[in-house]
Amino acid sequence: MSRVAYVNGQYLLHSEAGVHIDDRGYQFADGIYEVIALIRGQFLDEKGHLDRLERSLRELRIEMPMERRVLSHVLRETVRRNRIRSGIVYVQITRGVARRDHPFPAGVKPSIVVTARRIKGPSKAALDQGVGVITVKDIRWERRDIKSISLLPNILAKQEARENSAYEAWLVGNGGVVHEGSSTNAWIITMDGVLVTHPADHSVLNGITRLGVLAAADKLGIKIEERSFSVEEAHAAKEAFLTSTTSHLLSVVAIDGKPVGNGHPGELAIKLRQAYFSHLGLEDGSFL
Amino acid sequence: MSRVAYVNGQYLLHSEAGVHIDDRGYQFADGIYEVIALIRGQFLDEKGHLDRLERSLRELRIEMPMERRVLSHVLRETVRRNRIRSGIVYVQITRGVARRDHPFPAGVKPSIVVTARRIKGPSKAALDQGVGVITVKDIRWERRDIKSISLLPNILAKQEARENSAYEAWLVGNGGVVHEGSSTNAWIITMDGVLVTHPADHSVLNGITRLGVLAAADKLGIKIEERSFSVEEAHAAKEAFLTSTTSHLLSVVAIDGKPVGNGHPGELAIKLRQAYFSHLGLEDGSFL
Repeated sequence: MSRVAYVNGQYLLHSEAGVHIDDRGYQFADGIYEVIALIRGQFLDEKGHLDRLERSLRELRIEMPMERRVLSHVLRETVRRNRIRSGIVYVQITRGVARRDHPFPAGVKPSIVVTARRIKGPSKAALDQGVGVITVKDIRWERRDIKSISLLPNILAKQEARENSAYEAWLVGNGGVVHEGSSTNAWIITMDGVLVTHPADHSVLNGITRLGVLAAADKLGIKIEERSFSVEEAHAAKEAFLTSTTSHLLSVVAIDGKPVGNGHPGELAIKLRQAYFSHLGLEDGSFL
Repeated sequence: MSRVAYVNGQYLLHSEAGVHIDDRGYQFADGIYEVIALIRGQFLDEKGHLDRLERSLRELRIEMPMERRVLSHVLRETVRRNRIRSGIVYVQITRGVARRDHPFPAGVKPSIVVTARRIKGPSKAALDQGVGVITVKDIRWERRDIKSISLLPNILAKQEARENSAYEAWLVGNGGVVHEGSSTNAWIITMDGVLVTHPADHSVLNGITRLGVLAAADKLGIKIEERSFSVEEAHAAKEAFLTSTTSHLLSVVAIDGKPVGNGHPGELAIKLRQAYFSHLGLEDGSFL
């Protein structure tokens, strides 16, 4: 079966789906995106993702290309035409096509692309044994709260992680503070059992999974501190983990090659993953 | 006559020229570009632009999609097919098309787009009366020396300039230091007649016009200091100006609404523009 992509009002063969060379997404990274996970036919927190999509557009003063309920329909139709039960749907919206010039063009309609594909969740090894991360300097722009397609520093960091056999790169700002990963949020659990993650300011993306895990932790009665933490504090933590739409929640068992805690996934992270899936109405995540 | 664009080996009607939705330029801003000015059939410093293009690619570990002499031929052919004597040629190279995933994909060929168009040089008003700039915080990533298509902060700054009736936004870093404009380099001439511009480190793009003006200033025996300068120093300067491929050299006569010097283009800036064009073998620029 051939993949199908939705592009500006049409369902096209994915292999033939294109955008104009003067699309401002291509020339200026002038656009935003969302990735929504789909498990057993159910979108994971579609509302959270579409709320954030609308916020990103507002921050950049790009119009919604269609009403939200229509977009929601397009997501479902793209998933249906690709016959996907578990995977991801990807939405990208840019300011549109205009003769190349920096300021916002007048009278231009935003461009939208929606794709879907099957993906496997995290590997059994990642789930059972946890993953390692490296730390690299956070050289991104200062509006990381906007989920923009301006991702060049993110891919460079992820590539560096891969070349160091790490799952992710944790991006470190001034004063040795861990902001987040290149495409995931970063967390620690202190020796006192306090859950710590960077506050959702302009330094990090406010992950939808991040919000789900915070809600699940709250339900479990875990003490939460949304504050910055240093690489040193992470090294000394009882547990560490990362969250994202596609990784869900994975224990971080090594940072820059040094073990976190006993070097194995911690109990609280596993409990939090179960609580997160339950919070979404998806049993305990044991289907992963 | 219809515009023609070169896209990955083919000359296409510009209106129909597209790239795949999975092009990493579109999804990750994973690419670079150059703009080369053409005056009376002559490229302005093609060598400087192609040297920088190759450097940007090396920094991102993207391969050249073709040999340099072939690229040079494509630039000329694109200009010829669009029948342009004075204007610009635009080259964009991205890492290529791959299933969306952050790390560098294996076995992918880079994408290349070349377009050309007529543009008018700076307006007579801008040349005669100079232009105004505003200052805004520099929120870009920390590798501005790479001429990447990750330009979202640049367009936001340029838009802010336009909404404040300014020609350009000067981007200000820590300590109130002027880095450069959103698409131009920034210069002052001190009361002592010293030419000052930010050094070509990772904070700024090393403009090809910047290099040409430095060479022209040197020929004129002007004292040059490549060092950072503050907004305050710019306010107190004798003259200020900006440079870029399309603006060439324009006097900055107001910063945040306050006049620079006597509020009119200064003598040295005009002399430098003449010297810059002479340096390129293009008389004194009076054809503008």
